[in-house]
Amino acid sequence: MKLLRIATQNGPRWGVLDQERVRLAPLSAGPLAAHLHDITRISSLISEEPLGLKFSDYKILAPLDSPSQFIGVGLNYRDHAIETGLPIPKAPITFGLLQTSIIGPGDAIIIPPFASKVDWEAELGIVIGQSGTDISIDDAINYVAGYVIINDVSDRQVQNDEGQWGRSKSFNSFKPMGPWIVTRDEIGDASDLAIQLWVNGVLKQSSTTAELIFGVSEIVSRLSASTTLLSGSVISTGTPPGIGHSRVPPEYLNAGDEVKITIEGIGTLTNPISR
Amino acid sequence: MKLLRIATQNGPRWGVLDQERVRLAPLSAGPLAAHLHDITRISSLISEEPLGLKFSDYKILAPLDSPSQFIGVGLNYRDHAIETGLPIPKAPITFGLLQTSIIGPGDAIIIPPFASKVDWEAELGIVIGQSGTDISIDDAINYVAGYVIINDVSDRQVQNDEGQWGRSKSFNSFKPMGPWIVTRDEIGDASDLAIQLWVNGVLKQSSTTAELIFGVSEIVSRLSASTTLLSGSVISTGTPPGIGHSRVPPEYLNAGDEVKITIEGIGTLTNPISR
Repeated sequence: MKLLRIATQNGPRWGVLDQERVRLAPLSAGPLAAHLHDITRISSLISEEPLGLKFSDYKILAPLDSPSQFIGVGLNYRDHAIETGLPIPKAPITFGLLQTSIIGPGDAIIIPPFASKVDWEAELGIVIGQSGTDISIDDAINYVAGYVIINDVSDRQVQNDEGQWGRSKSFNSFKPMGPWIVTRDEIGDASDLAIQLWVNGVLKQSSTTAELIFGVSEIVSRLSASTTLLSGSVISTGTPPGIGHSRVPPEYLNAGDEVKITIEGIGTLTNPISR
Repeated sequence: MKLLRIATQNGPRWGVLDQERVRLAPLSAGPLAAHLHDITRISSLISEEPLGLKFSDYKILAPLDSPSQFIGVGLNYRDHAIETGLPIPKAPITFGLLQTSIIGPGDAIIIPPFASKVDWEAELGIVIGQSGTDISIDDAINYVAGYVIINDVSDRQVQNDEGQWGRSKSFNSFKPMGPWIVTRDEIGDASDLAIQLWVNGVLKQSSTTAELIFGVSEIVSRLSASTTLLSGSVISTGTPPGIGHSRVPPEYLNAGDEVKITIEGIGTLTNPISR
């Protein structure tokens, strides 16, 4: 099931994408977080009648604009850890992100006036569907509601100057998320999904989640050790090789560029760059 | 004005502490964040009639248990930066914290089974009262609703192993906050407040906010550059010298200990330690 949020005259509405058509939840807005643990419950909230319009007629919003928790994982693809010159982590390296950085599909990533080293990072996002603490690795997948695409846009200058990574990745508009949540039952096994990123049509990142050092279950289990993960939280799982900062010479995003990310089984997330 | 949250039979209620007595808001629970920008509005929500009970008869809760944003600042006292052996930062070093780590006055700080290097950090917390972006340093103080005491409890083993600090400071129960929000008008100038911390009655930290490398206005202004700060957000401003990890030999918290923090003009935050 593909769960999406769209803009309507009466505010944001939840819907389900059926083929090319959208079925809308009868509820206006409201947090979906309370229902993410129960896909059946979400389904029962959705109208059976498809709308007459195609989904391409709607403005699609980020599926979650205020996650309960918003956490990034760093250096989590073997090849990417190698390209940065940093050691392969023995435990997931995580950092907190700010909800204010989230934008939706098609929204512009805005480069701040002071920034000159803004970079891309294609990432698989985990949406937590059920709250839990000290979750075992075998049980962890049951806490996952589904998956989204995230572009973990980063200001490399600020990231390297400050050493702590959250702020450089939390500027307004730096977390494109979308285009929808694909539920776990539809994705099935997320351990070998193709993930690719293009800048202006040129392929920059191409890998698979099989290269993750810490996979979905391991991330959920380890993060839940002494930290209660909440339903409606989002964890961005790290990026594969091919970031701009590691290229020779380095490449960064500029106004007028367009970044496109696809993840197998989820879809495509495209965002223009502006200043 | 001292704004506090107390537990009642009908759930959490907001109140104002008057002398030793509490005046309660007529509203049950509900986020105060929407009103923090307007102290007059808060005041009008509070009953004029003091309750017959003393505030010591109530269980006082953390004043905010789900801040819009929850951000820590590291190495922000000159002497503390020196005691850690790290260079004096040229810009505030910030990291994201998780709301799930917040506990109230008197609640136990629980050491996880795997942890052996849990440390204390007395900190002044800024409560944002009005949302804003790119706030000038001269205007920054107008975005501050008030101040709280925060104990930025940290697992030094995880903090040093992972390099990114947020997780080691976001374990459940690791962010005692309270005992109330003292509004900016009552504190006045926050640039020279005495801050002290005792473990089992022994003074461990004693400084003043005059030692802050980046003061309240500078933190708010710099953090708001390209990141919208939201009303109801909390920023913990860093800790003075005297942490356990920098002592010779190092000292850490153990079950049965008690940590007490006072900040001039705010009050006292006391929490026991357990496993």
